[in-house]
Order: sequence, then structure tokens, then C-alpha cells
Amino acid sequence: GFAGGIQTVTIIPGDGIGPEISDAVIKIFDSAQVPIHWEERNVTAIKGPGGKWMIPPEAKESMDKSKIGLKGPLKTPIAAGHPSMNLLLRKTFDLYANVRPCVSIEGYKTPYTDVDLVTIRENTEGEYSGIEHVIVDGVVQSIKLITENASQRIAQFAFEYARNNQRSTVTAVHKANIMRMSDGLFLRKCRDVAENYKDIKFTEMYLDTVCLNMVQDPTSFDVLVMPNLYGDILSDLCAGLIGGLGVTPSGNIGANGVAIFESVHGTAPDIAGKDLANPTALLLSAVMMLRHMGLHDHAKKIEKACYDTIESETVRTKDLGGNAKCSEFTNEICRRVRDQD
Amino acid sequence: GFAGGIQTVTIIPGDGIGPEISDAVIKIFDSAQVPIHWEERNVTAIKGPGGKWMIPPEAKESMDKSKIGLKGPLKTPIAAGHPSMNLLLRKTFDLYANVRPCVSIEGYKTPYTDVDLVTIRENTEGEYSGIEHVIVDGVVQSIKLITENASQRIAQFAFEYARNNQRSTVTAVHKANIMRMSDGLFLRKCRDVAENYKDIKFTEMYLDTVCLNMVQDPTSFDVLVMPNLYGDILSDLCAGLIGGLGVTPSGNIGANGVAIFESVHGTAPDIAGKDLANPTALLLSAVMMLRHMGLHDHAKKIEKACYDTIESETVRTKDLGGNAKCSEFTNEICRRVRDQD
Ligand SMILES: CC(C)[C@H](C(=O)O)[C@@H](O)C(=O)O
Ligand SMILES: CC(C)[C@H](C(=O)O)[C@@H](O)C(=O)O
Repeated sequence: GFAGGIQTVTIIPGDGIGPEISDAVIKIFDSAQVPIHWEERNVTAIKGPGGKWMIPPEAKESMDKSKIGLKGPLKTPIAAGHPSMNLLLRKTFDLYANVRPCVSIEGYKTPYTDVDLVTIRENTEGEYSGIEHVIVDGVVQSIKLITENASQRIAQFAFEYARNNQRSTVTAVHKANIMRMSDGLFLRKCRDVAENYKDIKFTEMYLDTVCLNMVQDPTSFDVLVMPNLYGDILSDLCAGLIGGLGVTPSGNIGANGVAIFESVHGTAPDIAGKDLANPTALLLSAVMMLRHMGLHDHAKKIEKACYDTIESETVRTKDLGGNAKCSEFTNEICRRVRDQD
Repeated sequence: GFAGGIQTVTIIPGDGIGPEISDAVIKIFDSAQVPIHWEERNVTAIKGPGGKWMIPPEAKESMDKSKIGLKGPLKTPIAAGHPSMNLLLRKTFDLYANVRPCVSIEGYKTPYTDVDLVTIRENTEGEYSGIEHVIVDGVVQSIKLITENASQRIAQFAFEYARNNQRSTVTAVHKANIMRMSDGLFLRKCRDVAENYKDIKFTEMYLDTVCLNMVQDPTSFDVLVMPNLYGDILSDLCAGLIGGLGVTPSGNIGANGVAIFESVHGTAPDIAGKDLANPTALLLSAVMMLRHMGLHDHAKKIEKACYDTIESETVRTKDLGGNAKCSEFTNEICRRVRDQD
């Protein structure tokens, strides 16, 4: 929500290194004078009426008002029957699109250069339906659910994204040669929607072929759209191409602008509290968030400062091959943000 | 079947470049004096009684006798309702394990070196059940079927394979955090079987994590075992790491020694009949076949000649970066086979 030009964002620092990297992002945003008011909330699930797991009402209310969240890593709950927090958040706010831009980072060496693609994952159904049965002893079925509505809206989202981000091609990723009806429906909706976006090229490809080609030449891909599980796999694969989850941003987008941006790496309990964490993934997720909020200038400035810091190689965190502390890395980005004024 | 020390193998040359590369393999096998009698068969599906698609009786009978097949690429049938030949063959002979060794080829540059892993894919069930329904208009379900028996036998196969091939680790690849019952059952059977193989290390990993780590450091993997769809994806991904389907062998193994070895690349109609094809994938599949038949010395000799030819760089087919014809490449391998005597 707006308040005198200042928008409120719900920040969920999370566990382990979460608080440190959240502080880093807040500091960098301050240095860029981003007009954001942070509302901190905790999302540890609680048992609601009827024993259903839900996120705490304070967090839910904050998100309902602000519509925008930024989230650090959360520890995987170990209580029996406790849902994955990621899944619970996607569900609670109907965040139907998971968006992961994978862009090679200048100066951070991986086997690939010039990767510049985006995976768009349907986030609500498919293999994640949660419907499973024992048919007879020793025979289990899991149900993959594909609907016309969800397929339509994710396809629509992908094409809109492509258009708004000056991208030229959308590729639908599927196994409709095997799952003719379910992936067939998904694919058909992609084709239908493509008809309305004559400015964007549309292609379709089998998931296995995408994986094969991806590791051989990722530069041949642009925007990819796919059902839930395929997105789970491909988004991680693509993150690997550019340096892993420590440098990959992610956004979960719902209807009416509701969205949660998050780093998808773990809580790294071994280095938590030691000022050693790399805030890049959360920072780049926050940059995605700025673009989502229409704050393009701030986004550009912060992104540039982050990339320049990594590229210059003098101040890098350990996981990036340097020996700077999280705070030193953060300060260097802040300095570069200010230098751009 | 045996006949005076000479074993019969059913050869299915296939379409497009299939006949050329099959001829190449036969020629190389001749130069190595492999004690094999080739029985050539065509597997183009025909409609049997009741309209069911089946492979021609001559092919079926040959395989039933010989138990071992070597198969080139087949064109994808376009007739409506026509099954994938790959699926039909797996089903007809209950070839429950798909085995793909992915080994870096000395001298053939890819972004990775020292890859040496094997994917073992359950080949008969999972997402390939073929069971799908429209629930209501616009809502489709596909059923993923996991059984105790199939999970048990593929796990058993993987551990036996590891033991017989001096491999140290088997990793079960799954999404049991999402498909708790089906992938849970698969994983449980892997754990059970692991108990009987104390000489082999057992680990378990999420599919998404495997994909991420695979592109960052494939050398950390050894033998991987997984349900059908995950195997479809990972086996292609891993092939990509070492240079693609043109250099990757594959074997489909059933009970009682029945097996079909095949190149998994396409029919390449554009270069068919032009003496330009690369027979490496089919040749290395034939080498896997030799090991399966216990003909280890012949396998070693041919494999070495093939790898040495590629490594020497002077005689390579176009797709490998050279300008040799298929026949020249083949002759060079034959020469190197003979030179080893
Ligand atoms: C934690 C897990 C439930 C989740 C998933 O499988 O979707 C994760 O892998 C992700 O990509 O967010
Ligand atoms: C052709 C197709 C049916 C097949 C599959 O999906 O299994 C192929 O990708 C394979 O890996 O053999």
C-alpha cells in the first residue's frame, strides 16, 4: 500500500543467515533512498482452527495490506505433518507464478557465459496437488492435476512478462508426448494465448530436450513457461548455470500485484551470525521487487552497484571466492550506490 | 542364444541414418572378430488383433530367441494413436531398466571434464502409466503409478550394477517431499535394498538439488537411480554434459538377460544416406551390449579404438568438429582395432 509516496513492504527475515542478509538489503536500500517502509513479520506456521496449519495472522494481515513481501530463507519444519513454508505461502496468497531470471554475472566465472533467460513456473497445481492414494498394498498413485484456468493464466503471465521485459520468445516446456491429456491441455492453452501475442515468438519443446540443450547452449533460451514440477527442476538447473542459489533471485507473483520475492538458498546455519553470508540472492530478489513496484531507477542503481562489486573482485564474500565479510560487501555496494548520484 | 560360441543378436537398423551407422558398427565388430551373428529385423509397429499396436512377429520372435537387440534411431510415427516405438519396445520385452553411462570423452571438449556417472531409470511405470482422465471440463488428471515391485527391482538393479561395475555410491533421486506416498514408496524400497549392499554407499537427494549440483559439479555423482520421468530428464541432461546424444550410449534391460541397446539420438533425415553420420552413440551402445554378453575383451578393444580415434582429432565426423565421412571414421576405428592385436 502507498502512504505519501512511501510504500510498505512486509519483510520476513527468516532463519539462519536470514536476518543478516535482510539487514544488508535494508541498508543498501537506505543508501539508495528507496521510498519503502519495512514492516517486519514472522511467518512460522501455527495451527489454526480445525488443526489446519496457517501463517500467523499478523503476517497475513501485513501482506494483505502491503501486497508485497520480501523473504529470507526459512528452516524446513520438522514437525510431522507440518507443511513446507514455501508451499504454504504460495497457497495462502495464491502466488501462481514463480519467476526466476537467470543472468550470467560478469566476473563470476562458471562454465557458461551470456546466460540470460527466465523460467516461469506454474506454482499452484500439477504434481503438487497433494492428492495421493494407496490403490492396493504396494501400489500407490499420485495425481497430477492440470486445469485450463491455471494453464491459461500462467501462459498469459509469461507472454505479458515477455512483452513488458523486451523479450522475444516464449517456449512452452512439456511432456505432452507422454502426458497427452494433462500436458496436452497446458500446451493447448499456451498455443491459444500465443495467438494474442503476435509480437512474441512462441515455441514448444520437450522437457528432456530442454535439459539437454540447456547444458549445451543456454544462450539459445529466452523465456520458458512450464507446469509446476518441471519448473522446480529447470529453475534450479538454470540457477546452477550462473553460479547457484546464492546469486539467483526469485519472485512468486499472484493476482492484483500481490507478490513475495525471496532468496531460494538455505538458512546456512553453519555460518549464521558470523557476518559471512552473501546477501546477493536476496538483494537481487529485492531488485526484482522494485521493478514489480515500478521503482525502475532504484532497481537499476542497486543492481548495477551489486554487479559492479562482484565484478571488481576486490570485495567478495567467501562463497564468491573472496574473503570479505557480509558487512564489508554490503558497505561496498552502498558506496557504489551513492557514487552513482 | 548361443550357437557354437557364436551368439545371435537382433539388429534393428532403424530409419534415417540408422542403416549407415548400423553398417559401421557391424564393420567394426567384424574387424574385432566379435563372435556375433546378426539377425536383421524391422520393428515398424503393425496393428494386431483388436486394433492393438504391436511390433511385427518376425522381430518379436527374433528377440525372444536372441534375447539381445541393437537398435538404431526410429522415426517418430505420426499416425494418430500410434504409440512411441521406444515405449512399445520397452513394454513388449518388459525392459524395466534404462541405463546410461555418461563418461567424458578425452579430447572432445565440453564445459565439463572427468564426468563419469550412470543414470538408471525405472522404465515401466511412474508418470508413463498412460492413465489420464478429464475430471470435469477444463480439469485433467494424469496418474503417476509407483509400485513396490517395480521400485524394488530397479533399486536392486542399481545396486547390482554398482557392485558389478566397481562403483561406490548409489544415489536415489526423488521428490518425496512433495509426492510423499509415491516417491516415498520408491525411496523406501531403495533404502530397504541398500541394507543388503553394505559395500555400496547409499545417498538420497531431491531431483531439483541433483539438477543444480549436476551442472555445477557432475564429478560428485556416481550411480543415480530414479523413477521414470526423472530418468528421462536427467539422462538427457547428463548426455548434454559430455557432448550430447551423438556420443551417449544407452541400454534397456529386462529380466533374464533380455536387453536392447540403442543410440538415443534422432534419425537425422537431413544427412541420411550421405555418409556423414556419426556412429559413436550406436557403437558405444554396442560396446555396452558386449559387456552385457560377457564379451569384455572385445568391448574394451572396440571402446579404446573409438575413444582413441576421437581423441586423435585427425579423423572425426562433422558433428565432432572434423570433416571425415562416416566411412572414414569407421575405417579408422577398424584400423585401430586391428592395431591392438
Ligand atoms: C522446498 C520445496 C517444497 C520446493 C519445491 O519443491 O517447490 C523448493 O524446491 C522450491 O523450488 O521452492
Ligand atoms: C520418445 C519418448 C517417448 C522417450 C521418453 O519420453 O521416454 C524419450 O525421450 C526417451 O528418453 O527414450
